[in-house]
Amino acid sequence: MKLTRPLIGVDLGGTNMQIGVVSPEGKLLGRSKKKTRAEDGSAKVIQRILDGISEACEDAKILPRSLAAVGIGAPGAIDPATGTVREAPNLRWRDVPLARIVSRKLNKPTVVDNDVRSAIWGEHRLGAAKGVSDCMGVWIGTGIGGGLIFHGRLYHGHTFTAGEIGHTTIFPNMPPGSRSLENNCSRTAIVDRLLRLIRTNHASMIPELADGDLSDVKARVVATAYAKGDKLTRTVVDNAAQTLGIGIASAVTLLGLQRVVIGGGLTEAMGEQLVAPIRESVRTHAAPEICKRVEVVATKLEADAGLIGAAMLAADKLSRATRTR
Amino acid sequence: MKLTRPLIGVDLGGTNMQIGVVSPEGKLLGRSKKKTRAEDGSAKVIQRILDGISEACEDAKILPRSLAAVGIGAPGAIDPATGTVREAPNLRWRDVPLARIVSRKLNKPTVVDNDVRSAIWGEHRLGAAKGVSDCMGVWIGTGIGGGLIFHGRLYHGHTFTAGEIGHTTIFPNMPPGSRSLENNCSRTAIVDRLLRLIRTNHASMIPELADGDLSDVKARVVATAYAKGDKLTRTVVDNAAQTLGIGIASAVTLLGLQRVVIGGGLTEAMGEQLVAPIRESVRTHAAPEICKRVEVVATKLEADAGLIGAAMLAADKLSRATRTR
Repeated sequence: MKLTRPLIGVDLGGTNMQIGVVSPEGKLLGRSKKKTRAEDGSAKVIQRILDGISEACEDAKILPRSLAAVGIGAPGAIDPATGTVREAPNLRWRDVPLARIVSRKLNKPTVVDNDVRSAIWGEHRLGAAKGVSDCMGVWIGTGIGGGLIFHGRLYHGHTFTAGEIGHTTIFPNMPPGSRSLENNCSRTAIVDRLLRLIRTNHASMIPELADGDLSDVKARVVATAYAKGDKLTRTVVDNAAQTLGIGIASAVTLLGLQRVVIGGGLTEAMGEQLVAPIRESVRTHAAPEICKRVEVVATKLEADAGLIGAAMLAADKLSRATRTR
Repeated sequence: MKLTRPLIGVDLGGTNMQIGVVSPEGKLLGRSKKKTRAEDGSAKVIQRILDGISEACEDAKILPRSLAAVGIGAPGAIDPATGTVREAPNLRWRDVPLARIVSRKLNKPTVVDNDVRSAIWGEHRLGAAKGVSDCMGVWIGTGIGGGLIFHGRLYHGHTFTAGEIGHTTIFPNMPPGSRSLENNCSRTAIVDRLLRLIRTNHASMIPELADGDLSDVKARVVATAYAKGDKLTRTVVDNAAQTLGIGIASAVTLLGLQRVVIGGGLTEAMGEQLVAPIRESVRTHAAPEICKRVEVVATKLEADAGLIGAAMLAADKLSRATRTR
């Protein structure tokens, strides 16, 4: 049975949640956005998800009862079979049966998976990894997340944490806190390094571009400085891209991947300026020879990858269930 | 249909080939061993495989025509769907349709896969990873090979080279030739480092244990020196085990693995003395917390893992084919 009714996709972050009404073909029909406010506890966060779903339905001019299903991408370790959030430090949740609660409230089938894994699934179904059966996504933001697709299926691993390339070790001889890929190559790590250099009197346009406020330098500021040729920014970003490329190359070598999709806030802001040096480094360091042909590309769905992917996970689970009936 | 007839398993190495007649339950019924002599070219090597199969059948007191199927593990990139050896530098082979040639000569279904992947499959079916659906094997010898099982299936990747953890980068800032896990942690790397230290007047029992011949120090000699408490050997081996554990921990983090099997010649010689420091390092470095529970165990099938695994790959392909008929 071909799905015709729209879906809900929720991208639940530690700070904000993005909610969309998505057609079965992946078109965004309406949306809403809310603060997460994890400090209020899971019941209130879940109520805000439900409110956000109503608002997105209004925006799309549909009735909630016409929805086919709900998909939610949440940060942390999720058991996709039950939709239980096992452990989500960003939300301060542990063993929250999110899918069960939402499906009872809305009387709709509900699927929950990790937020970055949802985004990769979106890219696999409709974006930069369409039709590629063995691929990895690497999402660069506050931290570095990732997701893996093998044999055309999302791979969760025994621990439901598979894909966490940010936590792999890149510099074994550095002290804890400076060893992992995330410690060295996240947007946070890049900005920290820039600020350290600026504070020790290295010239840069960053203070001017940030209007003198260095307490919260955004991806957009880094991107502008890079695009304008700011030397310090180029040095720091290119170095981080090279290091990240070495870590990604090891994953490509281990997994024989066809394609790697780079996403997350910094990628959305910088595009090919960030992806090109990563690609070069991956191809230099991947082995054997055949692995150097790996394709390294930027996200296509950008900031909507998570919610579109979550909606597609719900659609795909529904059509599998329909098929086997 | 339950398989009742015996199988052939071949472990084709760059130097030697090991051939076994294996029952459908994985019991070794007879065996033979031959030199590979890759320099004679593929036709002669394949003839020696066929001769070895006859000899193993004689040893098992069975007629070759009573065989159910043949499985071959070969070093290099293999397309398991066709059984073609795409690229095998150790054999100097490129695009050799090994499965097709052997199946025509013997008139038996023939399966070819990578040698280390075959060994891991043996451990998964009958050895140290029995019943574990997400696991990795790491084989320490001349180099470091590996293999991956996801969702209970061997994973080959887009390039047919997946599992090559030895080629991943562990020290990004070292010069080429000293960067990879294999460069630092293979038996060859360990022996090279020991010899470098011995030649610069570091005390060790190794020269005595090797009868003064340092041109070819075997795994057995390293194992004996370690067991006898030779300080230099302990320092070098423990350091390599720690480094290898960091690389394995990154794979465990990326893949959320339940179990890692350590095998190969050095593991067979040293057993828990090698596996214990690797395990400790893996558990120290794997993240998030749940990944530290990964089980790190020694090979159970030891030197026969490759041929038993190759025979099981043939058995499993046959019973799949039978099922779908």
